[in-house]
Amino acid sequence: MKKVKVALLGFGTVGTGTWQIINDNREEIVKHCGYEIEISKILVQDTTKKRNIDIPEDVLTSNFDDIVNDEEIEMVVELMGGIDQAKEYILEAIKRKKHIVTANKALIANFGKEIIEAAEQEDVKFFYEASVCGGIPIIHSIKESLTGNKIQEIIGIVNGTTNFILTKMTKEKASFKDVLKEAQDLGYAEADPTADIEGYDAAHKLTILASLAFNTPVIFDEVYREGISRIDKIDIEYAEQMGYIIKLLAIAKEKEGELELRVHPTFISKYHPLASVNDSFNAVFLKGNAVGELMFYGRGAGDLPTGSAVVGDIVSILKNRYNPYSLTQFNSNMPNKKVKHMDDVTCEYYVRLMVDDQPGVLGKIASCFGKNGVSLSSVIQKGENVRPVALVFVTHYTTEGNVQKAMEEIRRMPDVIEVANIIRLENGKK
Amino acid sequence: MKKVKVALLGFGTVGTGTWQIINDNREEIVKHCGYEIEISKILVQDTTKKRNIDIPEDVLTSNFDDIVNDEEIEMVVELMGGIDQAKEYILEAIKRKKHIVTANKALIANFGKEIIEAAEQEDVKFFYEASVCGGIPIIHSIKESLTGNKIQEIIGIVNGTTNFILTKMTKEKASFKDVLKEAQDLGYAEADPTADIEGYDAAHKLTILASLAFNTPVIFDEVYREGISRIDKIDIEYAEQMGYIIKLLAIAKEKEGELELRVHPTFISKYHPLASVNDSFNAVFLKGNAVGELMFYGRGAGDLPTGSAVVGDIVSILKNRYNPYSLTQFNSNMPNKKVKHMDDVTCEYYVRLMVDDQPGVLGKIASCFGKNGVSLSSVIQKGENVRPVALVFVTHYTTEGNVQKAMEEIRRMPDVIEVANIIRLENGKK
Repeated sequence: MKKVKVALLGFGTVGTGTWQIINDNREEIVKHCGYEIEISKILVQDTTKKRNIDIPEDVLTSNFDDIVNDEEIEMVVELMGGIDQAKEYILEAIKRKKHIVTANKALIANFGKEIIEAAEQEDVKFFYEASVCGGIPIIHSIKESLTGNKIQEIIGIVNGTTNFILTKMTKEKASFKDVLKEAQDLGYAEADPTADIEGYDAAHKLTILASLAFNTPVIFDEVYREGISRIDKIDIEYAEQMGYIIKLLAIAKEKEGELELRVHPTFISKYHPLASVNDSFNAVFLKGNAVGELMFYGRGAGDLPTGSAVVGDIVSILKNRYNPYSLTQFNSNMPNKKVKHMDDVTCEYYVRLMVDDQPGVLGKIASCFGKNGVSLSSVIQKGENVRPVALVFVTHYTTEGNVQKAMEEIRRMPDVIEVANIIRLENGKK
Repeated sequence: MKKVKVALLGFGTVGTGTWQIINDNREEIVKHCGYEIEISKILVQDTTKKRNIDIPEDVLTSNFDDIVNDEEIEMVVELMGGIDQAKEYILEAIKRKKHIVTANKALIANFGKEIIEAAEQEDVKFFYEASVCGGIPIIHSIKESLTGNKIQEIIGIVNGTTNFILTKMTKEKASFKDVLKEAQDLGYAEADPTADIEGYDAAHKLTILASLAFNTPVIFDEVYREGISRIDKIDIEYAEQMGYIIKLLAIAKEKEGELELRVHPTFISKYHPLASVNDSFNAVFLKGNAVGELMFYGRGAGDLPTGSAVVGDIVSILKNRYNPYSLTQFNSNMPNKKVKHMDDVTCEYYVRLMVDDQPGVLGKIASCFGKNGVSLSSVIQKGENVRPVALVFVTHYTTEGNVQKAMEEIRRMPDVIEVANIIRLENGKK
């Protein structure tokens, strides 16, 4: 059996998953690509650390030179995370003509273009299916199966931690704080949960997806980003009453050559296919002008699901390494497309205010919306003669700029105690 | 711009969709593969027939020789349907070193192995993504992205017509007959609906999927098949009461090296991701030992969705035609795996009987189940002292053989007026 030598950089969750898959599913892999994959080196910080997996002694190394100087190693699989060190190693390995597989979304979202150009220059492959939504083959599908389509929109639930939290808040009417703590205790959320909770992780993934789907270099900083920490169980209840579920969505749309790129909590119809994606599952919903609506659903993280994507990429490279027409080819030299300023984005909005229940307050607020070009589709008032009383508005389609202008004025009204939340709706109409 | 000449065989729904996509999305296609695709010939029965699309006169031909003898045509896209003629043309085109794309599920389910062997012998590609679930990239995902997995099960809603009918029966509490008529009036069901309604179409697709997922030549006749014409709205109501939805599922599982292959109406938990796949949408749910649960959802039929898959395949071939490690390579020479006899398949069962409400009848039936090794998990009796009264049983896991033996005895009991329905459950436990 022909063998191909591969090195792993990093041996955490995904690294051990990849090791396990390559060893457990040896037969399947050979069937698909004709090669046996041998992980001949693994870069770790401490080679003497006790591990749960039995690794031959000479495989572990703490010296990257052992890998990059080993001419028998044809492929480097970067699973160490972080940006600077990972980038340095990858560029070095590319220079030494080694193919690259990575799961590093932050790296690609920030330096994808540079790395892809380097890979093209050296004629090596650079595959990164595992960087977005773990085991879900979304990148491969966009680059290989949907090539006959103009992709019009991508809407994803791409962060498992926040989906777990929102699902639990929805099902158990629990508060954000309590559920976050539970998620941390269970190991589903990090001790510092900022990257997940505030939508950075989702924005990294959206950067990669949008760049591929719309064939343009998307810059991470151009993605509007809002997290879920302001979502109250009351918002979830209002959503349910109106037939919606609240999800943290990563949304990318192309409209007349301009892009909308945004990550934020969203009211989505309970009948939308994404609405029933619960717990820590991920899903990517897209619309193409030929294929119509398409959704991919699965495990977005974890040792084996992400390892599945890593091994899929290794096999793809083995099948394509002598094929010049491979995945990365059309990634550099992409035309820049304009990203809409958030003020120009059009949505429907849910606005929850806490107000003093004085005669005329509803009229003043409604007039202020109207004056700023925001027309209302519904108003709900709960409670009477109490302080504070909740006033919930849902707007018709309007621009973010109009809503923000109206909110600025409303926030200053003496009877308005608090603008408790503003949440966008997504119902597939625009 | 480099051009590649392609011929279509047939110009019905999918053919016109393919034509439209290639013309409307020219830019996208070039971006992905570097080539412009030109449909230079289309085989039709009648070149003088009036068509809605404006086709240059010299493109249409009724003579296959015009295509097969044209050395500039590199690829033949078979969209005519049927078996014998399509097979003859495809084999002829393969002999002339033309790559093949087809959407013909019946052909592949029956003669796939023979065609793939011929394609390998002549070193041409044979791609058929469009044959299963239209625009959903399930074949490509199994062959390219999930190569690190042992696939353990595939459960699909792969026929849009039956899913449309069952969804409407569920939502509107309507009868099978009425909804079928409506579907026929709307053009969603054929005048002779047998292929859809009785599960032949689904069984063809399952044959292809199971063969790919389990890497074995699956024979169409080995797929157990049962249609939806016996589903009564009463069964749907019972299902709902118990927390289930009735779907026509195509199920393939590998357990200890043996395959289960079956298409039948099924009770599936309303929380299963497949349960919310409604109307004419398709979905394929699978489990891999690395990726875990994965689901693909989208349009399983129609001009543009199926055309999307056809064009995706054309582009894949253009990117892979000089790459020996391509999709078809590992399809011939697959080991045969044993397909379980249906009697040995293990399920839970829903059984609805119409009986005379005589004292002791429930006891007699329950004893008969017990005697045949079928243990019951619940019994529902509705109505009292009426004739006939409905008795509904749900069994624990048991073999099909045991259930059928029990039912044979029960059917002969004098108080049993009718065995109204027997429907299998699928809850992902076994």
